[in-house]
Amino acid sequence: MRLTSFTDYGLRMLMRMASAPDRAFSTGELADEFGLSRHHLTKIMQRLAKGGVVSTRRGGGGGAILARAPQDISVGAVVRLLEEGQALVECFAATGGSCTIAGCCRLRARLYSARNAFLTELDRSTLGDVALSESTGRAASKVVQT
Amino acid sequence: MRLTSFTDYGLRMLMRMASAPDRAFSTGELADEFGLSRHHLTKIMQRLAKGGVVSTRRGGGGGAILARAPQDISVGAVVRLLEEGQALVECFAATGGSCTIAGCCRLRARLYSARNAFLTELDRSTLGDVALSESTGRAASKVVQT
Repeated sequence: MRLTSFTDYGLRMLMRMASAPDRAFSTGELADEFGLSRHHLTKIMQRLAKGGVVSTRRGGGGGAILARAPQDISVGAVVRLLEEGQALVECFAATGGSCTIAGCCRLRARLYSARNAFLTELDRSTLGDVALSESTGRAASKVVQT
Repeated sequence: MRLTSFTDYGLRMLMRMASAPDRAFSTGELADEFGLSRHHLTKIMQRLAKGGVVSTRRGGGGGAILARAPQDISVGAVVRLLEEGQALVECFAATGGSCTIAGCCRLRARLYSARNAFLTELDRSTLGDVALSESTGRAASKVVQT
């Protein structure tokens, strides 16, 4: 089982933003710090803003800031938002896929329960629990620059 | 979050085999019934045989048969086997990936716990619980043939 890079990178961004929840971060700054594509992070930030996890400000001194306190944003909620539209298996897709047994499947409900167990476990953690330390941010930055 | 088609298709094959656990199935027969690639299913069956979930026989009347009773094979065990080598996120890969915060990450252990919760939930079901009925198999076959 895999999470998308969209979710993987989005979580890294939010962990960094949670280390300094009072200031705005630009996607360029986060892309440089983690050595990731600015274009990709911009799309992720747009999803996070649309989902109400971050607030964005345009112009000088602009950027994105957590919309709520880190301890009030659950990791599970973030993963649900970033994984939106990802089908665990073919029949979970909006199109329903082409599985010939979809109509009489006794596995489907069990897969839903397992996915819920995964997300419920993540609901036990918040961005406050997984925030990077400022020093970690600097260390990460150094790694990228060397 | 997504499971690989390798796992998705492998589960369909085993659900069908669990509907008639006493007879051997050829990958060609299963590929025809579900409208899937015979080549792909052959690779999946090889993994299932290597993992001890099925036993294979060569030659006339050959094919694959469940190695144990359906109620003695957990869905979780099958998913662990078929998802082997799939990294939930970049840092779960054998290579470790290139995440700059992997060394001091407070999220990693939480993602492991969530993955375990997913698999533990699937451990509650066996192939006996999700076996297709014979009629389902025929229905599936008809769908493919029309």
